[in-house]
Amino acid sequence: MTVEGKVRAAIVGSTGYGGVELIRLLQGHPKVEITSVISSSSAGAPIEEGFPHLTGVFTRNLDGVDAREMKERADVVFTATPSGVSAKLVPELLEAGLKVVDLSGDFRLKDGAEYERWYKHPAPQDEVLQQAVYGLCEVFGDRAAGVDFISNPGCYPTATLLGLIPALQAGWIKPESIIVDAKSGVSGAGRGVNLGVHYAEINENFKAYKVNKHQHIPEIEQTLTEIAGEPVIVTFTTHLVPMTRGIMATSYASLNDTYSEQDFIELYRNYYKGRSFVRVRSAGILPATKEVSGSNYCDIGFAVDPRTGRVTIFSVIDNLVKGAAGQAIQNLNLMMGWEETLGLGYTPVYP
Amino acid sequence: MTVEGKVRAAIVGSTGYGGVELIRLLQGHPKVEITSVISSSSAGAPIEEGFPHLTGVFTRNLDGVDAREMKERADVVFTATPSGVSAKLVPELLEAGLKVVDLSGDFRLKDGAEYERWYKHPAPQDEVLQQAVYGLCEVFGDRAAGVDFISNPGCYPTATLLGLIPALQAGWIKPESIIVDAKSGVSGAGRGVNLGVHYAEINENFKAYKVNKHQHIPEIEQTLTEIAGEPVIVTFTTHLVPMTRGIMATSYASLNDTYSEQDFIELYRNYYKGRSFVRVRSAGILPATKEVSGSNYCDIGFAVDPRTGRVTIFSVIDNLVKGAAGQAIQNLNLMMGWEETLGLGYTPVYP
Amino acid sequence: MTVEGKVRAAIVGSTGYGGVELIRLLQGHPKVEITSVISSSSAGAPIEEGFPHLTGVFTRNLDGVDAREMKERADVVFTATPSGVSAKLVPELLEAGLKVVDLSGDFRLKDGAEYERWYKHPAPQDEVLQQAVYGLCEVFGDRAAGVDFISNPGCYPTATLLGLIPALQAGWIKPESIIVDAKSGVSGAGRGVNLGVHYAEINENFKAYKVNKHQHIPEIEQTLTEIAGEPVIVTFTTHLVPMTRGIMATSYASLNDTYSEQDFIELYRNYYKGRSFVRVRSAGILPATKEVSGSNYCDIGFAVDPRTGRVTIFSVIDNLVKGAAGQAIQNLNLMMGWEETLGLGYTPVYP
Amino acid sequence: MTVEGKVRAAIVGSTGYGGVELIRLLQGHPKVEITSVISSSSAGAPIEEGFPHLTGVFTRNLDGVDAREMKERADVVFTATPSGVSAKLVPELLEAGLKVVDLSGDFRLKDGAEYERWYKHPAPQDEVLQQAVYGLCEVFGDRAAGVDFISNPGCYPTATLLGLIPALQAGWIKPESIIVDAKSGVSGAGRGVNLGVHYAEINENFKAYKVNKHQHIPEIEQTLTEIAGEPVIVTFTTHLVPMTRGIMATSYASLNDTYSEQDFIELYRNYYKGRSFVRVRSAGILPATKEVSGSNYCDIGFAVDPRTGRVTIFSVIDNLVKGAAGQAIQNLNLMMGWEETLGLGYTPVYP
Repeated sequence: MTVEGKVRAAIVGSTGYGGVELIRLLQGHPKVEITSVISSSSAGAPIEEGFPHLTGVFTRNLDGVDAREMKERADVVFTATPSGVSAKLVPELLEAGLKVVDLSGDFRLKDGAEYERWYKHPAPQDEVLQQAVYGLCEVFGDRAAGVDFISNPGCYPTATLLGLIPALQAGWIKPESIIVDAKSGVSGAGRGVNLGVHYAEINENFKAYKVNKHQHIPEIEQTLTEIAGEPVIVTFTTHLVPMTRGIMATSYASLNDTYSEQDFIELYRNYYKGRSFVRVRSAGILPATKEVSGSNYCDIGFAVDPRTGRVTIFSVIDNLVKGAAGQAIQNLNLMMGWEETLGLGYTPVYP
Repeated sequence: MTVEGKVRAAIVGSTGYGGVELIRLLQGHPKVEITSVISSSSAGAPIEEGFPHLTGVFTRNLDGVDAREMKERADVVFTATPSGVSAKLVPELLEAGLKVVDLSGDFRLKDGAEYERWYKHPAPQDEVLQQAVYGLCEVFGDRAAGVDFISNPGCYPTATLLGLIPALQAGWIKPESIIVDAKSGVSGAGRGVNLGVHYAEINENFKAYKVNKHQHIPEIEQTLTEIAGEPVIVTFTTHLVPMTRGIMATSYASLNDTYSEQDFIELYRNYYKGRSFVRVRSAGILPATKEVSGSNYCDIGFAVDPRTGRVTIFSVIDNLVKGAAGQAIQNLNLMMGWEETLGLGYTPVYP
Repeated sequence: MTVEGKVRAAIVGSTGYGGVELIRLLQGHPKVEITSVISSSSAGAPIEEGFPHLTGVFTRNLDGVDAREMKERADVVFTATPSGVSAKLVPELLEAGLKVVDLSGDFRLKDGAEYERWYKHPAPQDEVLQQAVYGLCEVFGDRAAGVDFISNPGCYPTATLLGLIPALQAGWIKPESIIVDAKSGVSGAGRGVNLGVHYAEINENFKAYKVNKHQHIPEIEQTLTEIAGEPVIVTFTTHLVPMTRGIMATSYASLNDTYSEQDFIELYRNYYKGRSFVRVRSAGILPATKEVSGSNYCDIGFAVDPRTGRVTIFSVIDNLVKGAAGQAIQNLNLMMGWEETLGLGYTPVYP
Repeated sequence: MTVEGKVRAAIVGSTGYGGVELIRLLQGHPKVEITSVISSSSAGAPIEEGFPHLTGVFTRNLDGVDAREMKERADVVFTATPSGVSAKLVPELLEAGLKVVDLSGDFRLKDGAEYERWYKHPAPQDEVLQQAVYGLCEVFGDRAAGVDFISNPGCYPTATLLGLIPALQAGWIKPESIIVDAKSGVSGAGRGVNLGVHYAEINENFKAYKVNKHQHIPEIEQTLTEIAGEPVIVTFTTHLVPMTRGIMATSYASLNDTYSEQDFIELYRNYYKGRSFVRVRSAGILPATKEVSGSNYCDIGFAVDPRTGRVTIFSVIDNLVKGAAGQAIQNLNLMMGWEETLGLGYTPVYP
């Protein structure tokens, strides 16, 4: 099952930002060997043609999408594909006996009808949908051990949920009061080209998009609903920041009682005890996206306003790491029963 | 009173970003002539030494701060000073018979105690405080005609209030539900140097600051309270965006009834009828900061979410124009009984 | 010939950055009225659909490309089209009796074969080519008066030539020693979408492109050759800067004798005497692109190194203004016999 | 001499960008343990106070500058201090028997008078100056083995020299024709605050600085002179790019004979054979700064222009890695007789 004792990994969607970040991160993983990088559009070409930064670091020709070949070459497949593609590909991979970590979003919603409402594609087969374990590591990490198929959370949901869950589970905040004002760097939109990612349109500009319509909303609500034990509906707004990497979710909620910032800090530090990748900031210190850039950290800070009885929770991640490739590797670690931090010890790149 | 029929203007604080933007904009004003640019720190130096972009455009030596000299040279004084400075200077200028538009924030709060709580300076004399007309032009423009002293609104309050007031006044939104998530470019912090504005700390970074503590909060609440006819307290969060100019206020509120986006659009277009500088976007189109850059516009858009019964209001301005120098000139126009758009017909610079 | 005494202008290519900048600038021109905005790709659509910043400022439906219609509606046509399009369109417009300022590059090279070598398109008809006046205003402005057809210089050539010509003409620099290291903001690449202008590929990145192959090279050499009276060949390198607007040309040349920076300053101030849009900086002060942003200025500074016997000349422009739309209007002014600064008095937007 | 078999390292100047990058990189070094982080200005404070990205990653209180304490705690000292400070500190450290890698620039020039001319400080003691080995690893790496004191090259010289040396040594380019047009991100200016690094002054701006006066010029000339075996004087221009990390040196030189790009590629690949950190690009492919970001690579590409008989050489580095902290660690590796790549296997962070 391994090359020199290593798990063999294939990456579908290697020419996207999520795929190439998987390559960067897996270069440093002691127990994983990338044996195939796959792209439907560029099969046959050397990967460094599109990504010259890999010259001399990771050089290989891109393979086409072929489940049988993957079965021969790999033990685990990361599917970093556009939504709609994984829905068709993953069942085939699972049937071939491969482990899968899916980064596409196709298997995050348990309710197929809900998927179709938000994603505008046909939902995957329900059986496979139900098999998928939603891999929000710090919350559901214990569900990942030993399974074959993880659906990796979205970037916005990761930042948002890690910021809200401890308070919601503790019953400190009113579920119906939750409002999330989220901001993302442009790499979250992927490497596809369109006017919306043209440098001259983004630079020195700040804008909102997909307001109340973002496909990450039902994923957030599904998880918050599970945590709260009652239906939770949120107001969720997405903005585009003139930067490449980083997400901040600024979450607002009304308190059920009087809590100080220090109360929140202790609640969260307790909740995330033993989980290296969540860093709860001390009182009065709020996280900034650059402080997690290039790393798998999610940093969280709080501001309680006694005047309004609300808490504001700030959570930041690097959307390509904790919001995609990093958490996918963390999920693989959990699936394999390894230390969850294995190969993910990157210090944030600052400045 | 005039040079060739023009009003003579002095600008205190000409070496700050607000002051130099006044110079840029007034260059195109048909009825105003800048007769003195004033700086306490750089008196005697040519202004183009610190601002080479003015070479050959506007060349003059900086004057020191001297109320008597201003009286001789000018009819109106724009005070673009740090807070605390205007508090002392403005009474002297008014006494000398000068008209004043104050951009400093010192005269925005009618309650001196409230001022001291948020600004941590001694409040100005109450008499002068009460004399100041709060110059939010599209709302209180009729109060400006003929007065001698206008307190120019802050940048965040301008974006926030223009976005909230029509809905609040119409009774469509619940005052106690208002949450404002605001984002600003870095020029809002002024030209002073500190680590917080170092390029390497801001670029490719997104962060929050002064949460629940920003001195613009009481100014927003004072005005919303007047509009609502009952005390309004808001949750207000400020973030720094890696860009130079622009503010977006994303305001959330619960609806008192069922209203569509189109209802909001009509309400706002009606409210702002005849006011050129507010542009209410059509349904489904949200404003971006770059679309008002360099201009005096405030653009407003709406998203109504029937699932949560909330409206999200997006309002954008250029913080140095509509949020400072542009509105100050608009206020002068109103004071003088001129067309409010005079000298402010700048098309946004895009891209 | 005019609407209320104004010249009627049509803009072909109104959905590109050059075209929309023409709209911005012409809004403030006292003698020109835009009567038609033309786009082959978006005819029929309101222009503010693609450019919401024009909402309420300039609202009009885009017209299709039809020479007969243009003749009815306009007196002058600005052709801000991709290269290859003007070659076909302009002869038709001229024949219809319209005045034309062409921003496309199709008519800048007098030698059709040279055009085909660099542009990889068939050259325009030689007759029309020879008719075109190369509109580098501060150098050849006297050729523009009264003509019907101006070929507007490229952005790189404008910055480069204004920086080199006075020294070359004076015989101070060795023609064969000229090396130009040029840098441009991304708007110079136009509004078309491709991976090369994707925000995430440009931001926090600096790269060279089209080295020794840029189609602006022969335009520079043709003009320098005319000035020098002998063939001039230059080394010319183009780089992309992570910013939207601005070009800096850093030009190197060996001196024929000993000259100080002050000598250069005086030579250039004398050469450009009476030309408002060239600002020669004082000794020790070098221009930066932001100092001309949004304006029609070209700022020039010098560093002489006695150790190497070379001068380094720094010239900066806003590529969309002096490098495109601004100079085009300046050319119209010269064609019409108006003051060349008419409608172009924009103070640079700083910061 | 070691903690668990590791070399103990102290970092003087840990609150600067060079120092904190040393911390990031050394976190992954298998044979080095940081035992002291030192700052004259912030001694006693926890390092994560100024650098919250280190929270939970590297937490330690800053020590003061005390050579005796360093001797007790460390085997090697990295001095990432402002110029002038190392000149005094290093002799003391060497005398105490410590190994030193100096990043300050104080010991790069062998000629003390030359140092004083360019740095405007008194030169260090000549004896210590002569002891320093100039650590340009890929050129002088064999001089580093076993020595106690390395002077780490400057960021500009590293990019420039690696780009020029193989061609100069081969006699392919004329020494007197060399012109270097260099561009740097803002982190090169350090973390000190001044108007020149204010975000609003840098963003959307491109400017030159210290032209012909940069203190890295004599360092470049000293090394080129040694390589050429005759005095080499260069024209060297430095520009500031609106980005945080990255340097590109665009170097121009006249050819002594006819060489193709492929000739250059082969010459350079041969010269740098076995040196992992220099990547020579294939014909027609030029390097961009982002392609080495966060890594210790120096990427080099060529454009030969037969029309002018010149070669243009493009070399890029991350100024904080190969231009500072990364090369310093590479030098330590060489001093210790370790593999030069040890602990430096970082894949560039892209995008």
